[in-house]
Amino acid sequence: MNRTAVYPGTFDPVTYGHLDVIKRVSSLYDIIYVAVAGSNLKAPVFTSDERVKMLEEAASGYDNVKVESFDGLVVDYARSRQAKVMIRGLRMISDFEYEFQMALTNRKLAPDIETVFMMPNETYSYLSSKLIKEIALTGADISEFVPGNVEEKLKEKMAR
Amino acid sequence: MNRTAVYPGTFDPVTYGHLDVIKRVSSLYDIIYVAVAGSNLKAPVFTSDERVKMLEEAASGYDNVKVESFDGLVVDYARSRQAKVMIRGLRMISDFEYEFQMALTNRKLAPDIETVFMMPNETYSYLSSKLIKEIALTGADISEFVPGNVEEKLKEKMAR
Amino acid sequence: MNRTAVYPGTFDPVTYGHLDVIKRVSSLYDIIYVAVAGSNLKAPVFTSDERVKMLEEAASGYDNVKVESFDGLVVDYARSRQAKVMIRGLRMISDFEYEFQMALTNRKLAPDIETVFMMPNETYSYLSSKLIKEIALTGADISEFVPGNVEEKLKEKMAR
Amino acid sequence: MNRTAVYPGTFDPVTYGHLDVIKRVSSLYDIIYVAVAGSNLKAPVFTSDERVKMLEEAASGYDNVKVESFDGLVVDYARSRQAKVMIRGLRMISDFEYEFQMALTNRKLAPDIETVFMMPNETYSYLSSKLIKEIALTGADISEFVPGNVEEKLKEKMAR
Amino acid sequence: MNRTAVYPGTFDPVTYGHLDVIKRVSSLYDIIYVAVAGSNLKAPVFTSDERVKMLEEAASGYDNVKVESFDGLVVDYARSRQAKVMIRGLRMISDFEYEFQMALTNRKLAPDIETVFMMPNETYSYLSSKLIKEIALTGADISEFVPGNVEEKLKEKMAR
Amino acid sequence: MNRTAVYPGTFDPVTYGHLDVIKRVSSLYDIIYVAVAGSNLKAPVFTSDERVKMLEEAASGYDNVKVESFDGLVVDYARSRQAKVMIRGLRMISDFEYEFQMALTNRKLAPDIETVFMMPNETYSYLSSKLIKEIALTGADISEFVPGNVEEKLKEKMAR
Repeated sequence: MNRTAVYPGTFDPVTYGHLDVIKRVSSLYDIIYVAVAGSNLKAPVFTSDERVKMLEEAASGYDNVKVESFDGLVVDYARSRQAKVMIRGLRMISDFEYEFQMALTNRKLAPDIETVFMMPNETYSYLSSKLIKEIALTGADISEFVPGNVEEKLKEKMAR
Repeated sequence: MNRTAVYPGTFDPVTYGHLDVIKRVSSLYDIIYVAVAGSNLKAPVFTSDERVKMLEEAASGYDNVKVESFDGLVVDYARSRQAKVMIRGLRMISDFEYEFQMALTNRKLAPDIETVFMMPNETYSYLSSKLIKEIALTGADISEFVPGNVEEKLKEKMAR
Repeated sequence: MNRTAVYPGTFDPVTYGHLDVIKRVSSLYDIIYVAVAGSNLKAPVFTSDERVKMLEEAASGYDNVKVESFDGLVVDYARSRQAKVMIRGLRMISDFEYEFQMALTNRKLAPDIETVFMMPNETYSYLSSKLIKEIALTGADISEFVPGNVEEKLKEKMAR
Repeated sequence: MNRTAVYPGTFDPVTYGHLDVIKRVSSLYDIIYVAVAGSNLKAPVFTSDERVKMLEEAASGYDNVKVESFDGLVVDYARSRQAKVMIRGLRMISDFEYEFQMALTNRKLAPDIETVFMMPNETYSYLSSKLIKEIALTGADISEFVPGNVEEKLKEKMAR
Repeated sequence: MNRTAVYPGTFDPVTYGHLDVIKRVSSLYDIIYVAVAGSNLKAPVFTSDERVKMLEEAASGYDNVKVESFDGLVVDYARSRQAKVMIRGLRMISDFEYEFQMALTNRKLAPDIETVFMMPNETYSYLSSKLIKEIALTGADISEFVPGNVEEKLKEKMAR
Repeated sequence: MNRTAVYPGTFDPVTYGHLDVIKRVSSLYDIIYVAVAGSNLKAPVFTSDERVKMLEEAASGYDNVKVESFDGLVVDYARSRQAKVMIRGLRMISDFEYEFQMALTNRKLAPDIETVFMMPNETYSYLSSKLIKEIALTGADISEFVPGNVEEKLKEKMAR
């Protein structure tokens, strides 16, 4: 039975919430492709390559986790990796709405691929990349929200 | 008794979800004005005229449905058509919040006009014009989401 | 065109919120049947007859509003009255969920009958028959929540 | 890697919504234990044995699906079956709240077991066992909601 | 300026979530009356006196926190203690709906008393007295959810 | 005991909803700093100075209310004013989600500062600065939504 999963997102940048999901799925599937959406974000702080690199560093402890970027439909990417499962973390109600809408649309586009939802640790239930970028802009400490390599990169960006 | 209804929206572009609402209301009112909001959308893919034309084609089967564009307050437009009822489709929770806020504000501005909410077929509960435009951008098949004339026009736009 | 609507509920007892909906629909339809669900409530404070009578008194100002009780499926009742429309008031999110579930189920059972949702005045957005009964039990003043005839009847019941 | 999943519920009775989830998970795991909660339901219409039997009939087409009843904590049951994954279907917001509360509590009780959420077909998004029982009580047709064997059993019960 | 607050609830039994709210409010007000609703709970596991006693033990570290039981309207109780503020913990959406409904009703009954909402630690965001009682019934460990004295009392009750 | 509160927001412009919250908190704290977020709004209609001035005029009746603008993290601003409490108005579900996310993030950044939520009068539950600006753009009457000085200023801006 095929045990490949895709965990797609923009990861601009990766947070401890994302890493918590990665840890959980790493023990449930043979291979997990963490898939960085290349171009659909309006004005990302980090380039697609930078986001892939930060994720690779942060997820280096999991042998069965590969990080890639993709363009186009996420279901096409999933198919190209022979994945039958797409993973999404569910944090809050507003997530829930958007995620269901995406998942139902993806199901119409690719009925053979199933979206499954994971619940991150409640400690990370409030984390969002957007909020972290806003906080970093003020120069505040963000070490509780993102791994060290991301904190550093974010400070560099903000210093410009 | 006045049996005129207004069904306002941006319709950028019209989807099968909108058409499902139009079908339902067409049997409940004498005249339905489908009202295309002219200018309040930030960066529409289609001009107001294009959106009216696509709607006219898609709703041509209903004799009591007229398509028009409007500017300014929707309640002023409704009054200009002697409509006592404004129709809105309710899909999801996030819709619900926004729709209630709009409806309560409109009621303050025009207490004589009532907003009534219809529930589209659950098959279309996840459809949004925004999502469809994102999918069309990738070149994916959108024929399950919009009528043929819209699909064609959307492909033309995206090809540019 | 058929202009008959049914406004079903348990109305145990009728509140100013219900009456606000009745006022709004009375100007939108030729005949409105306010339909008191006879038997599906577990332990109603008022009998079906008492609830009908209180509603008749409270809605006596609207010539096109008739109050009746019904048993069985509400869609069967609606059909028996040649109504194509069922009215429901939408107050809050929890309402929304339950109402959508009911409406989608009723649509499966009777595709020819449409559920439309009305928004009561925001002043009544928090009113529920259940809450009012709890407050009446403590002997507190409920004259802001229900009409005089209901207040009186509720006090009688609670005195027993 | 362990590929056993548990899909717990009360299933009083099983609906097409539950069966849709079973179909989806049957292709994602080696063994799925559909686990009927024995005793925590206040006044079930069907005994635990009846619910197991109806599920076995309805899911007989899936070789890797086993139906069992259990008592006590669902996480203890999952452990007894060496399952690392518990499956839950997510239909609506109210589901979401309750399901997250249950999943977070279960995670505290058993950090080694992960709850994953599946989205049933939107056609079944409104189905609930509770609603179906209410409809069956009125004698209405429920063949769109439950498989034939369940419909029959439900009619028998209601006839008493 | 009056600095008295009331924190009402059923507390059947008190959880670490309630205690987190008590800790937070103890530094914001001069006196906090934790008010155990005496009689409005249908079938409490603990008597009103038992609930007061468990709370007194659990909150014994806060000098400005007093535990009492009350009957009747909570706003009448608050007035009897000269409190201008009622505290409620907000955990989840379903809480939010119910809490707003209660708060708006209480405001109508007593415009001079303000309800303010506190957010418990996210670690306790999923805790509910109801869920804990269900878990305790199975004999599972509940020491992460309630203080030691409550755990002991709950085991005694469940053993009967 | 420290009785200073901060009520932060963008106030672009202040509405009757904000003023209702200000009225409520003015009787609960010794000093309330209404804090206008200086720079984090993308394209405010009013400058930070204009927003402060409109607030000062609208809240001039409350002796213990001071209006200031701030930059950077709101928790840093609150600390600079020795405030232990931050006030937020809660209107709707979408508010609730965002507010909880902000409040949990702020708690991580500053565990010594507590966010408390107030419920505005239900009459203002639908008001948003964004909606009011959209309405003002059409030239419609907004005197039910904002105080006179704000209405005037908004008309001036829109006339340009």
